[in-house]
Formats: sequence, C-alpha cells, structure tokens
Amino acid sequence: MKTIFNADHKLHDAAFELIGGKMMPAFECPRRAEIVLEKVTEAKLGPVIAPTATGIAAAAKVHDAKFVAFLEKAWGLWSEEHGDSDALPMTWPARSLRQIEPDSIDGKLGFYSFDAGCGLTKTSFQAIAAGVETSLTGVDLILAGETSAFALSRPPGHHATADQMGGYCYLNNAAIAAQVLAEAGRRVAILDVDYHHGNGTQAIFYERGDIYFASIHGHPTQEYPYFLGYADETGAGAGEGANLNLPLYWGSAWDAYGAALDKACEGIVAFGADTVVVSLGLDTFEEDPISKFKLKSEDYLRMGERIRKLGLQTLFVFEGGYAVEALGINTANVLIGFES
Amino acid sequence: MKTIFNADHKLHDAAFELIGGKMMPAFECPRRAEIVLEKVTEAKLGPVIAPTATGIAAAAKVHDAKFVAFLEKAWGLWSEEHGDSDALPMTWPARSLRQIEPDSIDGKLGFYSFDAGCGLTKTSFQAIAAGVETSLTGVDLILAGETSAFALSRPPGHHATADQMGGYCYLNNAAIAAQVLAEAGRRVAILDVDYHHGNGTQAIFYERGDIYFASIHGHPTQEYPYFLGYADETGAGAGEGANLNLPLYWGSAWDAYGAALDKACEGIVAFGADTVVVSLGLDTFEEDPISKFKLKSEDYLRMGERIRKLGLQTLFVFEGGYAVEALGINTANVLIGFES
Ligand SMILES: [Zn+2]
Ligand SMILES: [Zn+2]
Repeated sequence: MKTIFNADHKLHDAAFELIGGKMMPAFECPRRAEIVLEKVTEAKLGPVIAPTATGIAAAAKVHDAKFVAFLEKAWGLWSEEHGDSDALPMTWPARSLRQIEPDSIDGKLGFYSFDAGCGLTKTSFQAIAAGVETSLTGVDLILAGETSAFALSRPPGHHATADQMGGYCYLNNAAIAAQVLAEAGRRVAILDVDYHHGNGTQAIFYERGDIYFASIHGHPTQEYPYFLGYADETGAGAGEGANLNLPLYWGSAWDAYGAALDKACEGIVAFGADTVVVSLGLDTFEEDPISKFKLKSEDYLRMGERIRKLGLQTLFVFEGGYAVEALGINTANVLIGFES
Repeated sequence: MKTIFNADHKLHDAAFELIGGKMMPAFECPRRAEIVLEKVTEAKLGPVIAPTATGIAAAAKVHDAKFVAFLEKAWGLWSEEHGDSDALPMTWPARSLRQIEPDSIDGKLGFYSFDAGCGLTKTSFQAIAAGVETSLTGVDLILAGETSAFALSRPPGHHATADQMGGYCYLNNAAIAAQVLAEAGRRVAILDVDYHHGNGTQAIFYERGDIYFASIHGHPTQEYPYFLGYADETGAGAGEGANLNLPLYWGSAWDAYGAALDKACEGIVAFGADTVVVSLGLDTFEEDPISKFKLKSEDYLRMGERIRKLGLQTLFVFEGGYAVEALGINTANVLIGFES
C-alpha cells in the first residue's frame, strides 16, 4: 500500500486550544503526522510518495466556495486586527441571532466555526490545502486500480461541514475524496472509525443516497461534538437509510467496538459499495488524552483485518488520535491488519 | 436618587475570558461595581440601600425556566468533570447540528451560550441572583413613586437572551425589570446606552408591541455581538415599530452620539412611554479598553440631562464599562446630569 505524505502539513501548528475552560497546548500537532510516517515506513508497507494532485478546486464540490475563500484569507484579516496570535472564534450566531456573515473578522470566524478549539495560523491554509492534495492523490491511486492507499493528510477533516470548521478540521479530506470517487462512477461508502462522530461528513451527505456514511464513535450525550451522531440520524430525503451512527459509551473496548464494526461493515455491504473511504482516527486508543474508549494497540490489527474482509478498494484518510507516542504503531497496525 | 447595591455581586469573579485569540484577565470584574459605589456615594446622590426584593422567580417571566435552572446547576456539573477552573463553553450547536440540550456539561454550556467569554465560577450564580434582586428592588422603588433609582447590579444583563448567556451577561436584569413594570401597568421603554448592542433585550421583546427598545451602539458590522443590532431590525409581528437600533461606527464622539440619543428619546416619546429602564453601560468612554467610541467624562452629564428631559420615571440598571478607574465618575456623571 502506498502512503501519500505532504511535508507541508507542518505549516499548521496552532499554539493553543480551549478545552476544559483552559487554553491548552493544541493536541492536534505536527508531531502526529511525523510519527505515523516513521512507523508506516518502518513497517515497510510500501512506497511513501508526495502528492501528485495539485490544487484544491475539488474542495468546492462539498464545501461552500465562500467558506473556502474565507479560510484562505482569514488569518490576514485576523492579524490586521489582533496581531500575530492564532485566530480563534469567540462568539457565534446562536439561535436568537441573525445568520449573516459580518464584516468583522471575529464575526466571520464565529460564522464559519462551531467550536473555539480550532486555531488558524499564518500558514495554516497551506497545510490545509496540502491535506486536500494528499487525499486527492489517494483518490487517483484508487482510480488507477490500486487495492488501497493511505492518505496521511493533516490537519484532519471529518468534522468540517460544508461551511464550518471545528474539531481541528477545516476542509473535509475524506468527504472531498468520496465525492470525487462518486463522480468517477464509484459507489462509495465512508467508514468513520475516529473516536469522534464525523459530523461534517454526515452533514455533507445526509440527504444523498449515492454515498453511504457509517460512523462508530463516543456517544454524543457524553462526547464531542454533542449535537450530532445519535443513532436516530439515518439520513433524510434521498439519503434516508444511507447514514448509520453507532455511538458507544465511555469505556467501550474491543468487544463492543468489534461488534459495532461488524454492523457498519454489514451496512456497507448491503449498500453495495465498491469503494470505501476510511476516516482513520486512532483516538479510540485506551491512552488517548481526550478520549474514553479502551482499544489496545493489537485491536487495530483486527480493525484492519475486518475492513479488508469487505474485499473493496479502500482509501484510508488520516483523521484524529492524540496519544502521540503510540499513534504511529496504532496507525500502522490498521494498515498491517488490512494487508495481512 | 437611591442606589441599590448588593455586596454579593463580588461572588462573580471569573478569572479569564477568551478575546483576540487569548485568555485575558476578565474585563468584567468586581472592582467595577466597587468604584461605581464609591463615586456615587461621594456624589451624595442619595441613600445607598441593600436590595429588599428577595428571590428571582421573576426571571422566569423573560427567561426559559430550563435556562435559569441550568445556570444554577452548571458549575456543579462542570466541576465534576473539569475540576475547579471556571466553566467556559468550547463548542456550540451551529447550523449543521441538532438544536438539542446534550447530557454533557460541555454540550449544555454550548447550548446555553453564544460566546466563549462568559465564565461561570462556583459562586457566580449567587451574584447573578443578587443582580436580579437589585434590579427588582429598583422596580419596587419606581412603583412606590420614586422619580428615579439606580440598580447597581452586577454581572451585567443586556446580552442575555431568553435562554443563552454571553457578553458577560447571564440573566437580563433590565429586561426582567421592564417586564415586571409592564405587568404592573406601566408603558415601558428600554433605552440601552451600553457600547454594545443589547441583543438579549431586543430578542426577548422583539415580537411585542407593549415594550419599546431603543439602542445606540457600536455598528455590528464592526463590533460584538456582530449578528444583531442592525438598523433594519425594527421589530416583528405585534412588535413591528417598537425596536429602534442606532448603530454608530468606530470613532463616534458626542456629536454623533448626542444626535442618536435625541432620536432614541424621540422614539420613546412617540411610543408614549411613562417609564424608562436605562441599560446604563459606560463602555462608550474614549478610554474603554474593549470599545471604540470617543465619549468624554463630561459627555455623561449631557447624557443624563437628555434622559431627564424625557420627564419620565427612570430606572437605571448598570451594564458594561471597563475603563475601571474612570467608570465611577462616568456613571455618577449620568446620574448627576439626570438630577440637575
Ligand atoms: Zn477524533
Ligand atoms: Zn458593553
């Protein structure tokens, strides 16, 4: 399996995030991608290549063009008003307020965000674009006939909606990939194994019947993003039945997780998918600092094996996982399990 | 003029707020009320009394009962999960998410907030309740026939909506007062002279024709709360015509401000009000650290004189103002101008 790695990912390096009422060093840091690269290389899974896809025009297939343009210019507007600190939203258009894009950068940030943990730096947009190019290169490999590919994109993407950033995510690498694959005639299922519900991906495809979305994640009654990811969200309109949420409670280990993964895979088979995009988050790990599942390193081998059993062309797109030292091994284990 | 002061205000003392991408010491601090008390006392405007109203049952006249209950229990739920730090929201139910109250305290905080600058401490609710009692005592004085009264309530209230906190505001002291006065048969106008639009007060009464709201404030294209306070918001349904927004751009000084104040007063007269509730924020001052108007200390004398010219019973309710050392004098000047 080829790994696509874009060194520009490290241009996104936010200093802080707001969590538990405090500004903490950002959990979503460049070291994450570097250790995954290291362990995937050590595992000799296959060549590591640079992205060959160029440009992010495809992002506008699932995102509002205005939102993409905002991301590109946001830090410039921010720095004019606030100087060199990372851009973070501090207020948002809640239910008693108007749903309009204000002129002010603080207003714009609130308009295009759904959390305050997602900082933008001077060079973040270059990394975000590099993440999209990484993912699109994975699509090219799949369309060229490869059985699988691993897009080691960073920052992650699955929380990003059509027009909002949040949860460390800006542009939705997996959703963009799925959309391009679908436009190429593939019947695409997205399997989201990140600890957090992929609210952005779900929202983007919720009313569409041509792309299936299955997610296993911390129960939103307990866990971020709180406002989406419940089991009763099964799709709407043409998308009815094409959305499968399998929320699990804090403390869930492989027994419960594996059973949910079976269900998700059964859904993908029933949908008749020929291609799978895996939103590969590793924050289900027992030592993850912001998550509360109990998966062990060896469980990721089984996760990869189960996905392989689908027998479908598979594009892995990197998402979350914050137990940095084990993150490389856990990621490699999924891919090793898949190849075995 | 009697001043109502509740020493319990100091039980609300948030450590930090998120502003400009940084955690800053909270601008809305206990010293604000203390210096106002000091200068109002020095000015010998009249007796300073403790609140005689007890209980905040009246809050439910303009707020959702569930929201009030949330404020009371929020810090307890927060401390169970996050320990002793101030409670701050970090994510919110944006447009692609479900509008539901999650079980998790982080989810609840986002559901009941519209910004991340509004911390809750262990004893905040006692201070919030004291602020409401202070305001309600002012209502009692007006109903007993006093020409005017000054409710030195803290924390401020005018940003608080029926079911959301934000902008340092939790329960809307001025809106509660206006509602109780209206129920007692008064024809009430609210004049909001805080630098920031009183989005909470506007939203609470927006569809009602029996209470008039006029606000002079930093233009929302430039200034918090960004998503409300535009001139085209004139009320809806039965409230059509009973909402007057007079946004002014950064740099506005008394010439522009005084003209806007004349307009607001004309609106109040045309409405036929017999009682005025003034949301008295002093952050229009030229040295205010978070605001960009250019009013000088002597302008506040003129502000008070203009309000007095209305010839109506007037309840002043304290709101914002963060140039702490001048805040006492500026507040006293409004009241001195009114009495002159
Ligand atoms: Zn995650
Ligand atoms: Zn203010």
